[in-house]
Amino acid sequence: MSTPPKDSPTAILLVSCPDRPGIVAALSAFLYENRGNIVDIDQHVDPGEGVFFMRVEWELDGFAIPRENLAISLAPLAERFEMRWDLHFSDVIPRAALFVTKENHCFYDLLSRHESGELRMDIPLIVSNREDLKPVAERFGIPFHHFPIAAGNKAAQERAEIALLREAGVDLVVLARYMQILSPLMTEAFPHRIINIHHSFLPAFPGARPYHSAHQRGVKLVGATSHYVTEDLDEGPILVQGVVPVSHRDTVQDFIRKGRALEQTVLSRAVWLHLKRRTLVHANRTVVFG
Amino acid sequence: MSTPPKDSPTAILLVSCPDRPGIVAALSAFLYENRGNIVDIDQHVDPGEGVFFMRVEWELDGFAIPRENLAISLAPLAERFEMRWDLHFSDVIPRAALFVTKENHCFYDLLSRHESGELRMDIPLIVSNREDLKPVAERFGIPFHHFPIAAGNKAAQERAEIALLREAGVDLVVLARYMQILSPLMTEAFPHRIINIHHSFLPAFPGARPYHSAHQRGVKLVGATSHYVTEDLDEGPILVQGVVPVSHRDTVQDFIRKGRALEQTVLSRAVWLHLKRRTLVHANRTVVFG
Amino acid sequence: MSTPPKDSPTAILLVSCPDRPGIVAALSAFLYENRGNIVDIDQHVDPGEGVFFMRVEWELDGFAIPRENLAISLAPLAERFEMRWDLHFSDVIPRAALFVTKENHCFYDLLSRHESGELRMDIPLIVSNREDLKPVAERFGIPFHHFPIAAGNKAAQERAEIALLREAGVDLVVLARYMQILSPLMTEAFPHRIINIHHSFLPAFPGARPYHSAHQRGVKLVGATSHYVTEDLDEGPILVQGVVPVSHRDTVQDFIRKGRALEQTVLSRAVWLHLKRRTLVHANRTVVFG
Amino acid sequence: MSTPPKDSPTAILLVSCPDRPGIVAALSAFLYENRGNIVDIDQHVDPGEGVFFMRVEWELDGFAIPRENLAISLAPLAERFEMRWDLHFSDVIPRAALFVTKENHCFYDLLSRHESGELRMDIPLIVSNREDLKPVAERFGIPFHHFPIAAGNKAAQERAEIALLREAGVDLVVLARYMQILSPLMTEAFPHRIINIHHSFLPAFPGARPYHSAHQRGVKLVGATSHYVTEDLDEGPILVQGVVPVSHRDTVQDFIRKGRALEQTVLSRAVWLHLKRRTLVHANRTVVFG
Repeated sequence: MSTPPKDSPTAILLVSCPDRPGIVAALSAFLYENRGNIVDIDQHVDPGEGVFFMRVEWELDGFAIPRENLAISLAPLAERFEMRWDLHFSDVIPRAALFVTKENHCFYDLLSRHESGELRMDIPLIVSNREDLKPVAERFGIPFHHFPIAAGNKAAQERAEIALLREAGVDLVVLARYMQILSPLMTEAFPHRIINIHHSFLPAFPGARPYHSAHQRGVKLVGATSHYVTEDLDEGPILVQGVVPVSHRDTVQDFIRKGRALEQTVLSRAVWLHLKRRTLVHANRTVVFG
Repeated sequence: MSTPPKDSPTAILLVSCPDRPGIVAALSAFLYENRGNIVDIDQHVDPGEGVFFMRVEWELDGFAIPRENLAISLAPLAERFEMRWDLHFSDVIPRAALFVTKENHCFYDLLSRHESGELRMDIPLIVSNREDLKPVAERFGIPFHHFPIAAGNKAAQERAEIALLREAGVDLVVLARYMQILSPLMTEAFPHRIINIHHSFLPAFPGARPYHSAHQRGVKLVGATSHYVTEDLDEGPILVQGVVPVSHRDTVQDFIRKGRALEQTVLSRAVWLHLKRRTLVHANRTVVFG
Repeated sequence: MSTPPKDSPTAILLVSCPDRPGIVAALSAFLYENRGNIVDIDQHVDPGEGVFFMRVEWELDGFAIPRENLAISLAPLAERFEMRWDLHFSDVIPRAALFVTKENHCFYDLLSRHESGELRMDIPLIVSNREDLKPVAERFGIPFHHFPIAAGNKAAQERAEIALLREAGVDLVVLARYMQILSPLMTEAFPHRIINIHHSFLPAFPGARPYHSAHQRGVKLVGATSHYVTEDLDEGPILVQGVVPVSHRDTVQDFIRKGRALEQTVLSRAVWLHLKRRTLVHANRTVVFG
Repeated sequence: MSTPPKDSPTAILLVSCPDRPGIVAALSAFLYENRGNIVDIDQHVDPGEGVFFMRVEWELDGFAIPRENLAISLAPLAERFEMRWDLHFSDVIPRAALFVTKENHCFYDLLSRHESGELRMDIPLIVSNREDLKPVAERFGIPFHHFPIAAGNKAAQERAEIALLREAGVDLVVLARYMQILSPLMTEAFPHRIINIHHSFLPAFPGARPYHSAHQRGVKLVGATSHYVTEDLDEGPILVQGVVPVSHRDTVQDFIRKGRALEQTVLSRAVWLHLKRRTLVHANRTVVFG
């Protein structure tokens, strides 16, 4: 390993495969022999599932294999160990669409972190089922697309959305308090590429109005959960969770207010982790190399 | 209000009643006119239920009404405002029975806090469905009673336990990782007088093996919940909750280990609050004047 | 006490005085006799200082004393108990100026919470020693005033700022990562009316570059502290503190990134508490009726 | 890597060396070629210091090199990369001495976790400058050694303690709220082998009576810090930190009470990490492979 010169581009390889001896040795030898200067490496074995996970990041400057040949060069290793793998390059900026409804706090939080450079992504467009937040999108100069959802039109609207997202080269969808349930059409179009924020400590209080349910139950902490969206509502792999204390003095409105700061923190952290390619999914759980 | 001389005995009045104007004025006038020096006062209105709650603590030294007449003197006020109320004296030490099974961490934690004087209670006896922790009880010189629970004998055993508890003057039961479900026999004998620690962030993962379920779900925080025990398992009014972060690196055994420290902290805090008479229950929720 | 009809205006009285018997009785009787429906009441005694603190909020609808006569009507009580007191009305919206430099995260967070109605205040103007965030102010349609600070001009600039703030009727100044030290000119002009966010867990790491110092020391948590600004830098009464875990994997840049979400949460909470008139100051400490 | 059969003994190698390419490749090849089944591997580069750290754990069953030859076999690699390294075997149980004074909570917590098997160590003896906790040691059947410290006798007493510790084969000293400052005699005898718990969030409130100082300052969180003890009081490398919220309602006694649960949690976690050989020290900071 070695400290990277600032801003030199890196390659990031995410691997999962059946666990067996020699994987680390083989991969680190491959990189060493090709003069790949490793700047970060992390691995994990899920002993229950018998699966090995690795994330390795190395500098492209000085690396013997041109990036366009890298997939082919890796193929023998990948085959030998039956790897599923993803390869990313740090200078290829992900393109994210934000889905919003009317709550502005997560939306502003993502926009301000984008503006400050913390979240390294392009935001080619905003999608909403309402027009409440159109002025915010306009303020930031980002195209706003209104797809009202009514009885019977969800499939048609989602198809139109998917077409729009594909045309815009979107590879990540962030549901920033988007108050519509996605159909399988959408979740299958972007597998493990849609991040949601749910305003409870899942699996407690799934579904609608979780703060009301939490207040009714008399909990002493309220939570927020960011997860990849799958077909099963609120059941996707969890990325980040957080909680904040509440007491008998707090009304439902106070739960909602206290939860807001938590939601934006939890969602922004999940998006950051995804953009840094620090997340893998297996058996509906995440490995997060934080 | 005034600062209490150290160790002067106090009276503690816990009140709940329909909310209406004049309650604070009437109660504080009653105390002032009888030269009751208030050392702590707290109140709360549940706006949804329209219920007023108050805890007021005042010095008995110098108070015009002898403690044995206090209930009678309060009666007109209580009647006027339709109060439910409890009266406690700080120099009457509560008597608590600890119920344990085989996990020792909450048990030791309660015993050490008792020994240091933090938890001001007498512990006349220990109850267990197993004999694993008998040596610990013996080490501390506390009588240990073994009530094995087998198919068909629970009612009989609980009746014997209740008789024993009553004989020993027990007014609080603490389930310190007691791995048996109580029947209504027991919960009705000690309403809001039995405190349990459940090793999850309720209402997530009720029932058995919550750490296994939490691990299976892939949560990023594990929790613990201390609550009063009611007829409905894991559904009683919540007193204290806490969480601790976990990651993909943590096995179920790690969840259990990390959870231990949390369980003892959460349970000890709940017991402390109860002993200080800082808790009220209404509509299956607690008011905790922390 | 009684549940308030939604949006009926309330009066809020903040009191501190030498602790002695009868204060609660006298004040609650005063309100009851004048048909003041108490919606929230909280009190505290600092036993070391012998000081009594109270916050009481009651409905103006139906209250026997017109708000313009209230100060006069309270005078005898205030005199009897040697009270320092402040009186606020919930329908009088505070006017806050935001001071910023170049970090945008606290600024956006305050603006979005203002826009959503969570922070009930008017923001007549923004002050900055730089022009970096002028576009953000313009986006929100708020006048932006640039007061560059250079060697020798601070006193003159602060005098101009104070004149501007007074002209705009500002009664609260929020330093949203404003990177200039205020002189006594400013702090004396707005005593306990200036809220700062310091990016460390004070009193650890006061002064400049706290994240660098924290990283150098190898801490495992980084903190943020919101406090009222006094003459003594980073020594003012603390309103809110928070922490977030860090590890050896985190660089200074990671500390800064993780700290951002914390800073905005901590600052917004402090501003909310101030706007709700839930804070009192005594002996350089705060009483926060949260 | 591969899932270990339960309870098969493992070797744990802790390495630090100047960072340069090829270290991971060389070490993982060494293990693979000798049929060492890696069960856990973690590494870190400190980019500021240019230092590489690694912890690797592999099964001894099936490993080609007998454990008594391992140091010699590793020597060429260690020399090539200028490694500082430590080698441990999981079936060699560390021997820890607990130092106590009069607070019992950390002491009981360590004893109960030892009893339950969570902390895998032998405790051959207890050392104290007072006799308060002698009954607790006796209850657990652990020899208790009383070394009263008075003016002028500290050096002599520490020499006697060191002799005792050496005779007992102690390789870890845990200061479980031991209220004496160690001299360099002791800290040099057990470098990075003495773990302390300080009852504040260091570097805030070093020295004596930190809860009093924290209360005086009006903080909203109190902390605890576990660290390796070095010559400079409260300045050693930090292992674990935690905080718990406090408010204006909390007296110094409440700070102390709330801090207790935190101290025991933080100290037990630090001891667990050390026993699992998950900690390295460099430049007065720790790398904790948690």
